[in-house]
Amino acid sequence: MNKVKPALLRGFDQEYLPREQLQFNALVDLVRRNFELFGFLPLETPSAERREVLTSKGGVEKEIYALTRLADAEDDEAASKGALRFDLTVPLARYVAMRERELAFPFRRYQIQRVWRGETPQARKGRFREFYQCDIDIIGREKLSALAEAEIPSVIYSVFREMEIGDFRIRINNRKVLKGLLQHFKIPDPSAPAVLRILDKSEKEDEPRIRAQLEGEGMAAPAARDLLKLVSDKRDTRETLALLAKYAECAQGAAELQATVEAIGQFGVPDSAFGVDLGIVRGLDYYTGTIYETTLVAYPELGSICSGGRYDDLASHFTDTRLPGVGISIGLTRLFSKLLEAGLLKAPRRTPAEVLIATLEGQEIGAYLKMARTLREAGINTEVYLEAAKLKNQLAYAEKKGFRVALIAGETEFARQVVQVKNLAARTAADHPLGELVTAVRLILQQSTERNGN
Amino acid sequence: MNKVKPALLRGFDQEYLPREQLQFNALVDLVRRNFELFGFLPLETPSAERREVLTSKGGVEKEIYALTRLADAEDDEAASKGALRFDLTVPLARYVAMRERELAFPFRRYQIQRVWRGETPQARKGRFREFYQCDIDIIGREKLSALAEAEIPSVIYSVFREMEIGDFRIRINNRKVLKGLLQHFKIPDPSAPAVLRILDKSEKEDEPRIRAQLEGEGMAAPAARDLLKLVSDKRDTRETLALLAKYAECAQGAAELQATVEAIGQFGVPDSAFGVDLGIVRGLDYYTGTIYETTLVAYPELGSICSGGRYDDLASHFTDTRLPGVGISIGLTRLFSKLLEAGLLKAPRRTPAEVLIATLEGQEIGAYLKMARTLREAGINTEVYLEAAKLKNQLAYAEKKGFRVALIAGETEFARQVVQVKNLAARTAADHPLGELVTAVRLILQQSTERNGN
Repeated sequence: MNKVKPALLRGFDQEYLPREQLQFNALVDLVRRNFELFGFLPLETPSAERREVLTSKGGVEKEIYALTRLADAEDDEAASKGALRFDLTVPLARYVAMRERELAFPFRRYQIQRVWRGETPQARKGRFREFYQCDIDIIGREKLSALAEAEIPSVIYSVFREMEIGDFRIRINNRKVLKGLLQHFKIPDPSAPAVLRILDKSEKEDEPRIRAQLEGEGMAAPAARDLLKLVSDKRDTRETLALLAKYAECAQGAAELQATVEAIGQFGVPDSAFGVDLGIVRGLDYYTGTIYETTLVAYPELGSICSGGRYDDLASHFTDTRLPGVGISIGLTRLFSKLLEAGLLKAPRRTPAEVLIATLEGQEIGAYLKMARTLREAGINTEVYLEAAKLKNQLAYAEKKGFRVALIAGETEFARQVVQVKNLAARTAADHPLGELVTAVRLILQQSTERNGN
Repeated sequence: MNKVKPALLRGFDQEYLPREQLQFNALVDLVRRNFELFGFLPLETPSAERREVLTSKGGVEKEIYALTRLADAEDDEAASKGALRFDLTVPLARYVAMRERELAFPFRRYQIQRVWRGETPQARKGRFREFYQCDIDIIGREKLSALAEAEIPSVIYSVFREMEIGDFRIRINNRKVLKGLLQHFKIPDPSAPAVLRILDKSEKEDEPRIRAQLEGEGMAAPAARDLLKLVSDKRDTRETLALLAKYAECAQGAAELQATVEAIGQFGVPDSAFGVDLGIVRGLDYYTGTIYETTLVAYPELGSICSGGRYDDLASHFTDTRLPGVGISIGLTRLFSKLLEAGLLKAPRRTPAEVLIATLEGQEIGAYLKMARTLREAGINTEVYLEAAKLKNQLAYAEKKGFRVALIAGETEFARQVVQVKNLAARTAADHPLGELVTAVRLILQQSTERNGN
């Protein structure tokens, strides 16, 4: 038979071996658990939306994958009018506008799903065409307390503290501060978005290039240099707030920023984990208040691993109701690929491969199955090796799949009503009475959990 | 501003309100937990695959959604060569063929992901264009023990027992038995697949129509009647196996079926939960041994909620290695829509909406935030109401979102170092010292879990 080559599409290629998939799932579970700890409710939206919904904000057409049919199909809306979502914010806006009357506001939702973007894939940068985003947003109806902006860093802190991937820093800024600075430097309103986008790249690009770009937007060379210096210089939070006091145009933004900083502390985020950074700009036009980026102290080159901000109106394209909100997003596929590369991921605390029961020739399968039932009823993940194979090969299988415990029993053991319990990581083994199997196995699983967990 | 109507695409419309989403997620978690209990490892594959991979088995082109770009894009493989998967079996075959050397066999994987099919959506039948499938498969390399076929019903049993949606029956048959019967009735090989597909519909369609279709495949009227009666009549397992002894052509299949029945019992599935049913046929050509369907005793009209079977070669289109396997699939979106309609779903045991801390005017937010931190550190999902609002409105919000506990503290309470703990379901309330908050809240959560759980 002619074979088809089993291969993946470029950019649709983040597919893992079982051990990596377990690590990825552990990360998803951790993020989800922390989002739920703060009372965010889960949401999933369909993968495909109406094209006019996705393009309602404009400017994204060229990255969107639309659906079509390989063969002709009558009356298939999805194929004639549908496309895959490129983020989780537009579907959220559509959802809230559709179900405004049924939701309780402030509406706090989390959403962990795949999105699709027709960008040029760059594995080195962790950029793929299909990837996971993990979003939370707090959406108010007509109003939203500034405290919501201060709560967000406490969620970020909770997530990355538990992830144990090293020290991180939540860097915040306020769009009103940036707007004040642009006013101070006499940058006319129409140029503001372009100037903000230029400043947003200032950490990644050469200073002369950034200055040239600012001058390209009509700034005089000294002004461009001063503005760039102002946002790029590193200062601590207190210094930054003191500096802002000198710019009358920033008064409101600086006052808000100061209040947010104080409240973030009350929400339990230690001073060492966050700070004001005027270099945080965010590319998107629609942010209006606090904006966030998060970086790993030892791996600044990873860029921001969690970003977002406050916006004034989520769904103005769909409804007249004003829906102010604040939200952040973790690009989990990118983060995972980077953590894997940097060797920063721990083995997951639990896996489906906990206990393998080896089966010996000539023994009744029933005795092995009974052990398995006992363990499963105790909530222990258990596989019975069902093929006829030498014990050596069964243990090699256990090793390869990452099992923690193997159980071995033959004629002698069954006659004595015991089973050999092998701790596969510690390479130790001991006989235990069948009646004490669960206790013996639990002890080993607990030990290896502790070792892997911390 | 011109508004875009916030709406969904037909068939891409299974999107839930938070309470339903919580129930759906609880179902996914339950399925996943049970799959892991049997040592199945997680797998996720990309949403889009190469078109030639998806169409390698043939016959599915007309249901496939391909990707295209709204705007021109250079060098985008996904848009020129990619399409969305329509099941989880073809991606599994491609995956195993690609990574044969890196996997441990038997390869036991579970996969819970969305699939997309351009069928005509029928909400009444639970048929949608985007839906979740939950699959497990056990794949051997060159060989696979018949015990694997007997293990599958024990996983099905474990899943649906925990789901508590009423009595269910796992109905099994063996393709070799069916093949034997077709030989007995002198149906030539080339007609066999068509005849099997006709018999597969015999539970849903009128008897005369089925008979006419069998006659259309060249069967004489008496033979068509006898064959249909044979597969349609209801008998218990013992009777069925005795009956098969009369058909010499079924000898091998009947012996395998008998052995499988005995082994299923050893795997811990009670007799009341499974049985042989000659009417189980399955439409797919590639099954070669045991086949499974699962029905709810009180809701036979839901059809099979979990089906699958044994096959001889998973990935013959991709590799020369023979990969025999056995697997089942739960169509979770369809099942969920039916369970919701039938009112068979329980409230989930845990939700992100456990405790709402109300905030009263004039009080320092810090005191409320401290309570929240204490509860979260104890693993209790907690939201602080951050808007300025009357207590009445805050409690209405708690009600609407489904919170189980509300905490209320004002000047008097803080002076006395207590907090009012409100059990929202039981409509009771009592003051508790701040130091005993976690204990008091846990007690209520446990109570409401028991009520909701059983």
